[in-house]
Amino acid sequence: MRRFTRNFFLGKVGIGSEHPISVQSMCNTKTADTASTLKQICTLAEHGCDIIRVSADSPEDCQALGGICRRSPIPVIADIQFSGESALGAIRSGVAGIRVNPGIISDPDLIGSIAAAAKAAGTVIRVGANAGSLKPHEVNSRIQMGMEKDDALADALCGAVLKQCAELEKHGVTNIKAALKSSNIQVTLQAYRKFAAITDYPLHLGLTEAGTPRTGEIKSAVCIGTLLNAGIGDTVRVSLTADPVQEVDAALKILEACGMRHNQVEIISCPTCGRTEIDLIGLAEKVENMVKQIQRAGQNICWRKIAVMGCPVNGPGEARDADIGIAGSRNGQLIIFRKGEVIGAYSETEGFERFSRMISE
Amino acid sequence: MRRFTRNFFLGKVGIGSEHPISVQSMCNTKTADTASTLKQICTLAEHGCDIIRVSADSPEDCQALGGICRRSPIPVIADIQFSGESALGAIRSGVAGIRVNPGIISDPDLIGSIAAAAKAAGTVIRVGANAGSLKPHEVNSRIQMGMEKDDALADALCGAVLKQCAELEKHGVTNIKAALKSSNIQVTLQAYRKFAAITDYPLHLGLTEAGTPRTGEIKSAVCIGTLLNAGIGDTVRVSLTADPVQEVDAALKILEACGMRHNQVEIISCPTCGRTEIDLIGLAEKVENMVKQIQRAGQNICWRKIAVMGCPVNGPGEARDADIGIAGSRNGQLIIFRKGEVIGAYSETEGFERFSRMISE
Repeated sequence: MRRFTRNFFLGKVGIGSEHPISVQSMCNTKTADTASTLKQICTLAEHGCDIIRVSADSPEDCQALGGICRRSPIPVIADIQFSGESALGAIRSGVAGIRVNPGIISDPDLIGSIAAAAKAAGTVIRVGANAGSLKPHEVNSRIQMGMEKDDALADALCGAVLKQCAELEKHGVTNIKAALKSSNIQVTLQAYRKFAAITDYPLHLGLTEAGTPRTGEIKSAVCIGTLLNAGIGDTVRVSLTADPVQEVDAALKILEACGMRHNQVEIISCPTCGRTEIDLIGLAEKVENMVKQIQRAGQNICWRKIAVMGCPVNGPGEARDADIGIAGSRNGQLIIFRKGEVIGAYSETEGFERFSRMISE
Repeated sequence: MRRFTRNFFLGKVGIGSEHPISVQSMCNTKTADTASTLKQICTLAEHGCDIIRVSADSPEDCQALGGICRRSPIPVIADIQFSGESALGAIRSGVAGIRVNPGIISDPDLIGSIAAAAKAAGTVIRVGANAGSLKPHEVNSRIQMGMEKDDALADALCGAVLKQCAELEKHGVTNIKAALKSSNIQVTLQAYRKFAAITDYPLHLGLTEAGTPRTGEIKSAVCIGTLLNAGIGDTVRVSLTADPVQEVDAALKILEACGMRHNQVEIISCPTCGRTEIDLIGLAEKVENMVKQIQRAGQNICWRKIAVMGCPVNGPGEARDADIGIAGSRNGQLIIFRKGEVIGAYSETEGFERFSRMISE
């Protein structure tokens, strides 16, 4: 069951426990380059991105934001690091949200003027802390009183975010979401669990500096998946050192794995083993590509769960709950089955052709 | 904290809460082809596989098992599906363990003779159930009394495994581990959590039919990572429709993400964003490949955590706990830093060369 949170809208996207969990990514274009930024936003939106973040460091970035926000198909968040001026400029440009890092902007007067502007404009604020930008004394004071380093980091992340949220609330800002990221998964888990237990702020989940695609996806899936499976998390960003399209794809796959998105066709396929008498890896990839092509062409697939199995032990047997499936058999033949019932056994070529037709019909 | 379990040895590998979590994979060679099977086992062992499973379906497979077990560098488990004879043959051949599927072999007399042989030979037995091979009445009877389908599947998995464990215990077999797999992650999580709460059997974690590499790795990481982060799990197999080497690699990455393996160098790298002025994706991949090459050459790397960052906000700033790091800077320069202290700023070529020397020294 999802954790209860307050709810609000970021542009057209609902944030909080009454709404579906949304997927975010971040542009790697120069924000001031409006055309490239909008092009990347559109590509990401097509791939399933619900909310986009862009960096806002300079007056040029802020100037470009107005046009980007007006033409973007999805809500835009400005990522603020050092410049309070950029925060105010971004809010004036009409962004749906801004992200501030409490480890970097913490001056109460500056927070006060950002809060006043955000309240007046209805801008959502994410208080997004990073273990790496905590102030040394925030961590050391906790270690000195006897905390282990990881516990001190998690606790200091909570402390830094709570403090900034309180500052914003003092100025009447309530549309706040929070993130407590670290590149250490155990620290991240502990920080989110602690913060989730004591507040009702919606949570933006993520692991920072996760790395290159394979490693980064596995680390993010472990971290974000563990939290989502505990009901924690309202919006997700997978950070990868890769094309942002891969971030969106990985986030969607994690949400599906946690049973929180069901709008894609699921393909199950068994590992190969000594019983496999067909090129199962090749067959699974062929089926996966076929499904992707049909979906990209905007066509519907009427099967929810498609099985690609190496041998009759696995298919139809273990894959009997698949809506449709194909499995290797003796002598390189292929069996097609529907809901556990074998329809027929065919030669490899004929079997795949029949199966393709059934999938795309 | 890990869940308490009984402990025993599978060949030389300790299984249970007193021992490290081990990594398994399964050969996709014909077991009867001793040379190919041993070659694959050696490759997998080199990549970090602790325990290997091979299918044992025919008398020829069982005959080959003796030689495979004697020459394998890691303990061998025979995977039994339909044939009780193969179970007995495999035990006679000296395998360290066998896996039986309670959905397929359930006849009490046959279980009795397998148990007697295993007890005499000291063979470990994994009771490995699969949602797909549950008997229809085991699920339907639970649905008829009002359970939701997923709950019924999870409960029936527990029931089937408990029943077979009790049968084995009756014959004096106590070195039992269990698996309760499904291709549905939520069913798998529920089954393992339930079973973990009521028994002290070590658990073999896995998700069946996870699929092709990217999707399968993300699904497995969500499922196995969620359980490991709850202290559940003693041995892990990632099932992928791919070369088994990738299964081992993914399993190791999941264990590292859960803080349960620390013997590898960790590379953190930030996602690209509008602040990045260097080819960060290329740089991160270059560093990753360099580390891999050094490790494959059997050389040690004295840095535990290496950071590759896009801009000075992230490195050294957010990556200050990295032992060594490289980050992009203005005008395409590279900064090198150690434990948060900047050593210097260099041109791209010189920076990477210096960094390479520092890594490999």
